[in-house]
Amino acid sequence: MLISPTDAIAAIATPPGTGALAIVRVSGAGALRAAAAVLGRAEEALPPRRACLASARDQEGDIDQVVALYHPAARSPTGEDLVELTCHGSVYIQRRLLAALLAAGARAARPGEFTQRAFLSGRLDLAQAEAVCDLIAGGTRLAHRSALSQLEGGLSSRVAGLRGPVLELLTHLEACLDHPDEDIAPLPRTEAQSRLHRLAEPVARLADTFRTGRILREGLRVCIVGRPNAGKSSLLNALLGHSRAIVCAEPGTTRDVLEEPCDLAGLPAVLVDTAGLGHDSRGAADEEGLARAQRALRASDLALLVIDGSRPVEAADESAHRRVLDASAADGRPVITVLSKTDLPRRAAAAPWDCAVSALRGAGVEELKRLVAERLGGHPDGPAEPGATVTHQRHHAALRRCAAELEEAALCVGREPGCWEELCARNLREALSSLDEITGPAAGDEVLHGIFSRFCLGK
Amino acid sequence: MLISPTDAIAAIATPPGTGALAIVRVSGAGALRAAAAVLGRAEEALPPRRACLASARDQEGDIDQVVALYHPAARSPTGEDLVELTCHGSVYIQRRLLAALLAAGARAARPGEFTQRAFLSGRLDLAQAEAVCDLIAGGTRLAHRSALSQLEGGLSSRVAGLRGPVLELLTHLEACLDHPDEDIAPLPRTEAQSRLHRLAEPVARLADTFRTGRILREGLRVCIVGRPNAGKSSLLNALLGHSRAIVCAEPGTTRDVLEEPCDLAGLPAVLVDTAGLGHDSRGAADEEGLARAQRALRASDLALLVIDGSRPVEAADESAHRRVLDASAADGRPVITVLSKTDLPRRAAAAPWDCAVSALRGAGVEELKRLVAERLGGHPDGPAEPGATVTHQRHHAALRRCAAELEEAALCVGREPGCWEELCARNLREALSSLDEITGPAAGDEVLHGIFSRFCLGK
Repeated sequence: MLISPTDAIAAIATPPGTGALAIVRVSGAGALRAAAAVLGRAEEALPPRRACLASARDQEGDIDQVVALYHPAARSPTGEDLVELTCHGSVYIQRRLLAALLAAGARAARPGEFTQRAFLSGRLDLAQAEAVCDLIAGGTRLAHRSALSQLEGGLSSRVAGLRGPVLELLTHLEACLDHPDEDIAPLPRTEAQSRLHRLAEPVARLADTFRTGRILREGLRVCIVGRPNAGKSSLLNALLGHSRAIVCAEPGTTRDVLEEPCDLAGLPAVLVDTAGLGHDSRGAADEEGLARAQRALRASDLALLVIDGSRPVEAADESAHRRVLDASAADGRPVITVLSKTDLPRRAAAAPWDCAVSALRGAGVEELKRLVAERLGGHPDGPAEPGATVTHQRHHAALRRCAAELEEAALCVGREPGCWEELCARNLREALSSLDEITGPAAGDEVLHGIFSRFCLGK
Repeated sequence: MLISPTDAIAAIATPPGTGALAIVRVSGAGALRAAAAVLGRAEEALPPRRACLASARDQEGDIDQVVALYHPAARSPTGEDLVELTCHGSVYIQRRLLAALLAAGARAARPGEFTQRAFLSGRLDLAQAEAVCDLIAGGTRLAHRSALSQLEGGLSSRVAGLRGPVLELLTHLEACLDHPDEDIAPLPRTEAQSRLHRLAEPVARLADTFRTGRILREGLRVCIVGRPNAGKSSLLNALLGHSRAIVCAEPGTTRDVLEEPCDLAGLPAVLVDTAGLGHDSRGAADEEGLARAQRALRASDLALLVIDGSRPVEAADESAHRRVLDASAADGRPVITVLSKTDLPRRAAAAPWDCAVSALRGAGVEELKRLVAERLGGHPDGPAEPGATVTHQRHHAALRRCAAELEEAALCVGREPGCWEELCARNLREALSSLDEITGPAAGDEVLHGIFSRFCLGK
């Protein structure tokens, strides 16, 4: 653990650039003193949580009329004395106000250092601190909801709920081990085994939510595949709501793999448009386009297989579609088949499909977005309990380790001929430690540094 | 005048983009109601000027934990009820919070509309409102100081000081005209004339400060001229503090006119580097370079004439320098002669210069910057009273009109054979109206629209 720091740190907290207003803030033991010095006031003249209009000055003269707001440590976001100065949003004023605070004894904050202070003062646990970063980066409804829930302690309380019974079992075993002569009922092997399995199961289940939870942070990769001229680029444009890809009646227009971030019914997604599959290659560029399409499909979370509804499905189409479906089934990748061009008379009568779309008229596009979100979370609104979803690789790994320790403990109860309690207790301690890495107490300096250095400046 | 509006307007007030924090604000009669609705609180639960932690919600659910600050109309920056919500600085949260306020009855503010409300409610006069825009745009010490002073009423109080005695004289004349039979002492012609001249003189003097004041807003155009290879581009780079122009021992390297914004001892400036004067043209490109250098010189506020200190000054040099000095004298453009390359043995013994510089070693560069600022304001810190400087073309034109009306009045007193009071009073009313255009009462809708539409959104 880092030693709890007390020096005052200062930074511009609002987005970089020019605006009507900006906030420069200072946190730490000397924050009130530094702010009072810049405002030419006694510290008592900044009453807690009251907006005060004040003139900020440095040696050169007046900087600006600012609104000062003092949050005392007991209830501040950082858990330390914190002063926010809201000034006119000129870059010059923001910089000069920050420089004045630095001259008055504060030092420039590192990225994420305000949130790190909130963590070190116990205002936020580590999972909540990570959620601050996600909340600021989250650009869609579900990504936002997941981050907000994690910030409000959704994941932390789930982890606490898993931790309690593990600790209880460990305490029982340690009592038996430490005081063999006292009258503590020993745990029968069979009961210990079944309790360990019951403990491991919800841990593994929570870890498994990372499969979908990952997407809330990193975005869903949706690969649009299909035969040449099936309407893939038109579908991309329709899903984006603007014309990104060149659309042309000539088959094989798209060669490069196009990637475009997109909000799919609240899910963050990256749409990937590809060259037509099974296209009669007319040269090296087409060959390369096909190879790229195959790679893009393999790297995706979900495939949209586009079938031209205005043409009969021929043998070459059938075989190209079959290859996409087989490859995806082998990788465990969901496929949604999309019948395209429903504005034209339908000729592709035999093909089964999940969704019919006219990119030209926009018909079926919203339904397709909902379908994608459903395939992902099992519910059009995403996971029912957003806090119960693991969105960080770090949390996923810790939960996997915890579940493995619990399963290993169960194995060891069945396997050890003699005193199994000692070995089992060791596994349980490791399992607890894994859970504590998520919320912070057991996270090492390197982990902490890795987390907070990813933050933006001023957070 | 516009009719004073009362509907609630809302906007994101901090710079666009992602940051740690952002502010969304709402102003107007319904502002408190809209904010309270988004926060799910009674209006009374938002006490004046107290920071309240609250959960912002819309129909979709929680948006963010925000800090709400209610400024009642009596002391708010807009002169109306104003609520500021400080949220996490994600673009998604900022937009959704704004949308929630709009759904709760506010409408999206137009650019400058918050400042316009401050003007309409009498919180700021028009010159002060214009200074808000300048303050946000001001990027150097002197530009900032000038805008801050104007915002604090520096120019407005100067205008009020000019207005008082004009009104006094007008009142006297009107009393004589309206009540000829009462016992009011008539004003002798000679006294009226001398009073009018005394009134016009400080108005014209204030208008004249625009010559330098303009530069505080628009930036000083400094043209660097000289013979080929005199070291113009090296001087540009040294003044900028980074390498912008290509520097080469070969004469005639610079052909294009390079322009670069720069902070010259607190003054906003645009440095203009040009092709060498009197260079033996080697083709159309060189000819065009020379023509551009001449145009750049004519468009500049100040010229830096660079003389190579490492070479004897020859007849061709003398005549090129003479042409610059003569043309500048004719235009009233100050010229600072800069002896360059002082790191080399000096050969240009005879030339007079204002400042000796080694761009290579950085020697003399700060002195040159101070010299430029001095030439402009007569003082290295710029105008002694920054509020006494006119920085807007609009204010300059109004002061010129006022001075012209006063001079016209004085002429008319001397010229009219009969009753001069009537005509003189008409000029005085026009003079007052011109002054009132500066601070607002006499500004038309078109002027107001022109001023506020230049603001950034959220201001």
